Amino acid sequence: MRTSHGQGGGLPCGVRVVCAGAQARLRVARDLNGVGCHDGRMDSHVTTYRTGDVERVLDLTSDAADWVAGRGDGLLHVFVPHATAGIAILETGAGSDDDLLAALRDLLPADDRWRHRHGSLGHGRSHVMPALIPPYASVPVLGGRLALGTWQSICLVDLNVDNAEREVRFSFVGG
Amino acid sequence: MRTSHGQGGGLPCGVRVVCAGAQARLRVARDLNGVGCHDGRMDSHVTTYRTGDVERVLDLTSDAADWVAGRGDGLLHVFVPHATAGIAILETGAGSDDDLLAALRDLLPADDRWRHRHGSLGHGRSHVMPALIPPYASVPVLGGRLALGTWQSICLVDLNVDNAEREVRFSFVGG
Amino acid sequence: MRTSHGQGGGLPCGVRVVCAGAQARLRVARDLNGVGCHDGRMDSHVTTYRTGDVERVLDLTSDAADWVAGRGDGLLHVFVPHATAGIAILETGAGSDDDLLAALRDLLPADDRWRHRHGSLGHGRSHVMPALIPPYASVPVLGGRLALGTWQSICLVDLNVDNAEREVRFSFVGG
Repeated sequence: MRTSHGQGGGLPCGVRVVCAGAQARLRVARDLNGVGCHDGRMDSHVTTYRTGDVERVLDLTSDAADWVAGRGDGLLHVFVPHATAGIAILETGAGSDDDLLAALRDLLPADDRWRHRHGSLGHGRSHVMPALIPPYASVPVLGGRLALGTWQSICLVDLNVDNAEREVRFSFVGG
Repeated sequence: MRTSHGQGGGLPCGVRVVCAGAQARLRVARDLNGVGCHDGRMDSHVTTYRTGDVERVLDLTSDAADWVAGRGDGLLHVFVPHATAGIAILETGAGSDDDLLAALRDLLPADDRWRHRHGSLGHGRSHVMPALIPPYASVPVLGGRLALGTWQSICLVDLNVDNAEREVRFSFVGG
Repeated sequence: MRTSHGQGGGLPCGVRVVCAGAQARLRVARDLNGVGCHDGRMDSHVTTYRTGDVERVLDLTSDAADWVAGRGDGLLHVFVPHATAGIAILETGAGSDDDLLAALRDLLPADDRWRHRHGSLGHGRSHVMPALIPPYASVPVLGGRLALGTWQSICLVDLNVDNAEREVRFSFVGG
């Protein structure tokens, strides 16, 4: 199973469908090799999310917390293996997720200025976004719990309306 | 003491007050468990800084250097567990810290555009900032020394005038 | 050799010149201590690149892939020890690298607004850029291979026309 993870996210057996609010989510069953972390090795798995055809800030925190539960101390590394998505840590549910999307409309307008012209009008902005909102984030884990602040959530940021499904790789580097 | 660190930054016993230039700083005494890093475990502690009621770029480099001193090779991970602060690596003391604050006034104006409306006018910008200036940074450590360039400093960036005190978590992942 | 690496990137013996497309590259011979990673230690080396006197997005992916080859599972950490450069993960060769440079001209104009006034007109923008495009990136490595998406490249972003040569530190933290 580690090997299949090494391929960058094909869906291994054990996929189940979970409905969470508006999003249908394809959830990769947890890698039992996770136990391997406790001897200091890195463990990693991929979850696939449906982001649909709208700009989206998708909260991944509960899945991240599940992934590190019981793993002791180390670093959680979250990585999105797509050239048009990023990972941001921000408050969700109090308007800031919409504020981020509005700010990105100003900073990276969805118009015809972009040389990269594939896909919908302004698609090129989605290829610049990862330079400002990187496709990775790292969070300390202590005693198997994310050391996030009260209002911090780990979020997938996706402006790309042409790509309805996204993979996210969760890795744990045991301290 | 590791456990108390796991709680996300309450001040353990051993707190002492240090005055450094304009800032009064609450300094968490160094975790003696730091020695544990040498067997490859992660060690982590939290320091609390007073940022006051103004926009601030606060240089954390000397504390970061103290934290990794004698730890051999690995990665320093700096994390601020707040939804309205970020960590940036830049030159300080030659105008660039003020230039950053000025640029952020243009990119994320302190006006009434934000849906998130708690606190002072424009507070919502502080909740978008961590998507552009993430709440974490990582720096290689070699022979117990930060492998920073000559002009690089590790800085806390805080536009939030409503929160006068900030915690910063320093973690070391032994190589 | 580890020690010389600890100094932040002087060129140790074993330097050879490689010509790759438009760039003349000074390549540091691979650190044989790399084998040390397999017991969980961090290994790190510095490569020097010629970026010349123009704004540049320089693709480092092939060097990064060479560096992690055969290292098993862990994290690649890329760090540029300069206060006027950043690391971004984006698609190259399809216009997005030029789109990024164009966006940065709008977001951080090369004019006289900057307090930091050394060097060419607008040089101050290069000192603010690392707050938005950080000088580090981290990428999961599985089975000695970068877990990048199909269209992702690891790039050095350098707006600084006054500094023609840049060091990049590649570190591997064994899982």
